[in-house]
Amino acid sequence: MDTLHPHLTRACGYHFGWWSADGEPSQDAVPSKFLRATLVLLAAEAAGASHTAAVPGAVAVELLHNHSLIHDDVIDRDHLRRGRRTVWSVFGTPTAVLAGDALAATAVQHLSQVDTAHARRALVMITDAFRRICAGQAADLQLEKGALVAVEDYLHMAADKTSALLACSVGVGAVLAGADEVTIDRLQAACTDLGLAWQAANDVEDIWGDPAVTGKPPLSDLRQGKMTLPVLAALVSDTPAGRALAARRALCAGHQSEDLQHIADLIVQAGGRAAAERVAQERLISAQNHLRELKVPDASREAFTALFRFIVTRSA
Amino acid sequence: MDTLHPHLTRACGYHFGWWSADGEPSQDAVPSKFLRATLVLLAAEAAGASHTAAVPGAVAVELLHNHSLIHDDVIDRDHLRRGRRTVWSVFGTPTAVLAGDALAATAVQHLSQVDTAHARRALVMITDAFRRICAGQAADLQLEKGALVAVEDYLHMAADKTSALLACSVGVGAVLAGADEVTIDRLQAACTDLGLAWQAANDVEDIWGDPAVTGKPPLSDLRQGKMTLPVLAALVSDTPAGRALAARRALCAGHQSEDLQHIADLIVQAGGRAAAERVAQERLISAQNHLRELKVPDASREAFTALFRFIVTRSA
Repeated sequence: MDTLHPHLTRACGYHFGWWSADGEPSQDAVPSKFLRATLVLLAAEAAGASHTAAVPGAVAVELLHNHSLIHDDVIDRDHLRRGRRTVWSVFGTPTAVLAGDALAATAVQHLSQVDTAHARRALVMITDAFRRICAGQAADLQLEKGALVAVEDYLHMAADKTSALLACSVGVGAVLAGADEVTIDRLQAACTDLGLAWQAANDVEDIWGDPAVTGKPPLSDLRQGKMTLPVLAALVSDTPAGRALAARRALCAGHQSEDLQHIADLIVQAGGRAAAERVAQERLISAQNHLRELKVPDASREAFTALFRFIVTRSA
Repeated sequence: MDTLHPHLTRACGYHFGWWSADGEPSQDAVPSKFLRATLVLLAAEAAGASHTAAVPGAVAVELLHNHSLIHDDVIDRDHLRRGRRTVWSVFGTPTAVLAGDALAATAVQHLSQVDTAHARRALVMITDAFRRICAGQAADLQLEKGALVAVEDYLHMAADKTSALLACSVGVGAVLAGADEVTIDRLQAACTDLGLAWQAANDVEDIWGDPAVTGKPPLSDLRQGKMTLPVLAALVSDTPAGRALAARRALCAGHQSEDLQHIADLIVQAGGRAAAERVAQERLISAQNHLRELKVPDASREAFTALFRFIVTRSA
């Protein structure tokens, strides 16, 4: 980070929670859990390599992830992330766009400096994930505008937006460690499921979760009129509550909090919450089944299983 | 482009002038001159290789350049580029941010798929240019806010913002063609000078050029209170006109067109225009001197010389 332009170093370090907006040691930041970097290192370990070979991949994946977070906040005009003001809201949109770009550039550069055939393959993986994140966010933009899509299309969006980088993380770790193709494929399949479970769990949490845990204002997706899995599942439920929800949504815009609470209740009655929880549950089980089929040391499998559960439930 | 999300394909193709905002064949677009791609191919040719080896580099450089144009327009809130509405002003900031990201991702992916040691080195070059563009734009943001910097700092900004990708273009072409180090270095030095000449000429053109040629509203840098080379040179000139300019700028904000014209006249009287024109002229000569020292076929040198002159003067 120190080799960026000082204004971008400031903005990126603020984003990572290393310092406050004026560069003072940060008091209020929740440090990043570096989940994706952890996935890279666990995958390398599972494939029998030391962490060392996979560190450039872990760095690259984490930088790319934070690139997408900073740009995502610009796109969504979100003011808060992890209970702290977002980069664009502190430093302005121009600096946030450039800070995100600089992280993406640094991510790719870091990995491109490793001179092995494995690193080149990892680089193709990470640039593929980079493209899929863009596609997922573009699809998500339509949902934010309230577009009605099929549940499958929603899951396709989530596979790009959320799963791609998780699958890339284990892929990069395994590839850098010289793992066999079956191990690479199974790890990636597990993380694709993990991403879908996480997205579904997040959608539930946004409506019915504790704002102190999410770090976001309560009911923010509903407030923005955004389509998420519980809403989409409720709308196609063909239930009285689902139809009442559709009628409500038609006269959307500028809902008060009581309205939002009523909408959340209609989603529950129409089975939307249960449907989303079911997706989260089923995908987590599917991810764990992939893990079980892996030919890796038991300790590795257990570490993955615990991490997956933590990611989806946010409780260790 | 076809493999991006359809909304991003639409926005990127609009940017390239392939179609209108609603996807119809475009009537009003000035096609891109693909100057950077041309530099890549000329460099490969100068190094004795066929164009073919350098095409992935040409594609990557051009995509990265257009990434930065789309984001630059978001950052500057510019409404027009080449006489046509900018991507963010047509499709909105969220789509423009994602379209720019998708082009950067595609640029890097395209080159990372080439499996040679030359391609890896080219990739390091292109990601280095990517980082320098971000740094240059971050420095430029400060100038847009009217920060007073030394002329050398201005040139440092321009070296990052404008020269880095031009030098990267010939570097990538030469590296992919297997050129020797002296050739790579001289081509890059020539393009570093070229970028500085171009930036200085652009700054002059923005104030005294023909809006029909620039495709931008007249006096737009002055209107925005942006520091450019003629302004900075005038302010440090220690002339009556330079001091009058400094006094004018202190009560800046919301200038009318007559005011702007008067400011432009003060810059001329303080020698700011002449100083910027001198930088453009000197750097173009220096670039051409580098070209003269190159051990390449005469036809290659002549092609570079003609292209350099075209770039700086915008006339063939």
